[in-house]
Amino acid sequence: MRTTVGIIGAGPAGLLLARLLHNAGIDSVVLESRDRAYVERRQRAGILEQGTADVLRAAGAGERMDREGLRHDGIELRFDRTRHRVDFPALTGGRSVMVYAQTEVCKDLIALQLREGGPLLFEAEALAVEDAGTDTPRIRFRHEGREDVLECSYVVGCDGFWGVARKAIPAGLTQVFERTYPFGWLGILADVPPSHDELVYARHERGFALLSMRSPAVSRLYLQVPDGTDPGAWGDDEIWDELERRFETADDWYLQRGPITQKTVTPMRSYVHEPMRHGRLFLAGDAAHIVPPTGAKGLNLAAGDVVTFARALVHQQETGSPELLDAYSRTCLRRVWQAERFSYDMTTLLHRAPGATAFEDRLQLARLERIASSRAAETDLAEAYTGFPFG
Amino acid sequence: MRTTVGIIGAGPAGLLLARLLHNAGIDSVVLESRDRAYVERRQRAGILEQGTADVLRAAGAGERMDREGLRHDGIELRFDRTRHRVDFPALTGGRSVMVYAQTEVCKDLIALQLREGGPLLFEAEALAVEDAGTDTPRIRFRHEGREDVLECSYVVGCDGFWGVARKAIPAGLTQVFERTYPFGWLGILADVPPSHDELVYARHERGFALLSMRSPAVSRLYLQVPDGTDPGAWGDDEIWDELERRFETADDWYLQRGPITQKTVTPMRSYVHEPMRHGRLFLAGDAAHIVPPTGAKGLNLAAGDVVTFARALVHQQETGSPELLDAYSRTCLRRVWQAERFSYDMTTLLHRAPGATAFEDRLQLARLERIASSRAAETDLAEAYTGFPFG
Repeated sequence: MRTTVGIIGAGPAGLLLARLLHNAGIDSVVLESRDRAYVERRQRAGILEQGTADVLRAAGAGERMDREGLRHDGIELRFDRTRHRVDFPALTGGRSVMVYAQTEVCKDLIALQLREGGPLLFEAEALAVEDAGTDTPRIRFRHEGREDVLECSYVVGCDGFWGVARKAIPAGLTQVFERTYPFGWLGILADVPPSHDELVYARHERGFALLSMRSPAVSRLYLQVPDGTDPGAWGDDEIWDELERRFETADDWYLQRGPITQKTVTPMRSYVHEPMRHGRLFLAGDAAHIVPPTGAKGLNLAAGDVVTFARALVHQQETGSPELLDAYSRTCLRRVWQAERFSYDMTTLLHRAPGATAFEDRLQLARLERIASSRAAETDLAEAYTGFPFG
Repeated sequence: MRTTVGIIGAGPAGLLLARLLHNAGIDSVVLESRDRAYVERRQRAGILEQGTADVLRAAGAGERMDREGLRHDGIELRFDRTRHRVDFPALTGGRSVMVYAQTEVCKDLIALQLREGGPLLFEAEALAVEDAGTDTPRIRFRHEGREDVLECSYVVGCDGFWGVARKAIPAGLTQVFERTYPFGWLGILADVPPSHDELVYARHERGFALLSMRSPAVSRLYLQVPDGTDPGAWGDDEIWDELERRFETADDWYLQRGPITQKTVTPMRSYVHEPMRHGRLFLAGDAAHIVPPTGAKGLNLAAGDVVTFARALVHQQETGSPELLDAYSRTCLRRVWQAERFSYDMTTLLHRAPGATAFEDRLQLARLERIASSRAAETDLAEAYTGFPFG
């Protein structure tokens, strides 16, 4: 089998890339190790930056998002029993975000790809990327019980943190930047309308909590828990009680409870792999970098990477110049590091580290008060939350 | 001996307070444990926020400052061999800072006090504050070999971190917030014109460096060094060589050398004591809080404290209401915590912590790049540097 761009992974990065390439008349093949049902069920992020939503629209994949997604013009910061709303459009010249789950983005892109795009092979497990440093890189993969080879002009590894693509970059050429956090998020889906119409980020001495939503009828809520927590160890009532405590306010706001339909624990990690390119192998999304979810940046970084790659390849095909492809890693990493910084800052702003000193507690409150009282500090946050420019 | 306000310490806080009270027609006595020559020689801060300079002017103590001080409209951030100027007036609606050494502020205020003000006793060592919780607090002190008592209506402890005033607040009522840093500043005075006309804050993989000045003919320079470094261990050439490395740029800027006239090592500490008031004892300046010097906030916080106290006492005398005196601690601490936050952030932004990970190094660079590329982030810094509002 042969294609121009071999894409490993049918998460949002791989699927969006296939769509962008299709629209540019460039053929690709997507290999995904899981089956379609699994990919369409995998719960992940839910916040699309303005730029990501725009890209999906421009790619012809925004129709259902615009119908069913929820445009959010702000978030609420909750601390010390007070509430502070950050008004995105007022601070950023009109920008906002879209609440639309990653699973839904994937469903939309899969449907489009199967209807209009090139091959998308489920249960096709990439085993290795070979000859990445040459003009004819190859993906060895297993599909329907047989090993096969996909010959490519370019390979893009969109296969996530645990994928094989990154391993094809010689260790001697790479540098890894990493931080783990001593806590994770216990996340629930609940069949109850969200108790607030925008996301609520709560800093509480008992730990962070986040109120989010999947739809007007489904709440998504998170609690900071110790690293390695078993989600089953938390009873439903216990979860609601703890959420109620952490979201406490001085006014009469209250948290509406409902049946919990899913419980998961997400670990927290910051990770960057440099470079993001080796020869004709390009890494995109979680294959190259991980952010803790507090800044809602993971999916948006992935979108930025593949937009950058697609632009660079189109530029190369139109002008013959490899200039943008050569700059891929540098271009992406500028944005990646800003998102890493922001995600780290949001995480340390809102979570209670085990063994945090009284001084650190007060620093957190002083930071939150600064954001609540300085338009400059608040704008800094709003700009970062609604998204750094692509490319 | 009896007075309305007993002031312990003739640093900038105590001296400015005596002046403010004198101007308001309120009598005070200042007790200073050192002799005059010592106080006038003690090298400390050199950056006055716009608000601090305004207070000195309004107090009639700004004449020489306005003649000899250097108004600075910006600072330079230097990192990755690049230079970024932060333009204070453009970002803050016209605010700037004044470079005028604390020693000079003290000389001006001492001269004024001795000429026009109430008693200022040198070599008068406060031993204890007594009966702080009553209407008749007293300062026991030793002067010219004899123990004596100053009966006061109010006592203000401006006696620094090591002073006795803070000890008069019962431990059970207080909370201490603290952080030490595993590095200090090796500071030099050198008889050479400053190599740049504004302060240069350099982040370098070998550690932080700061270029500052005392006058157009005297440079003040600092190097981050390990905690506990003996200043004598650094030879003059070694210091200049290291400064040159850390200030390196891609352009043709160079560091001019000259005779070093003083070498000192300053430890770095964040410290807040709450509350800042107990009964009729009020703490001001370093007696209540310490910031690492990176944000140039120490002297300015002290000025804010004594302005707050003087206003509150005048209000009490004019209206009979203790409302502002009662709010003293809360009022000051709001500003203190913002300065603590800013000083901590500037310190961690620019210093290399021993054992810092590659991830933390990149975070620093990403932060600096954010400041250099976002007007909001830059404004946040400029607002904090030029000063938070008094009171």
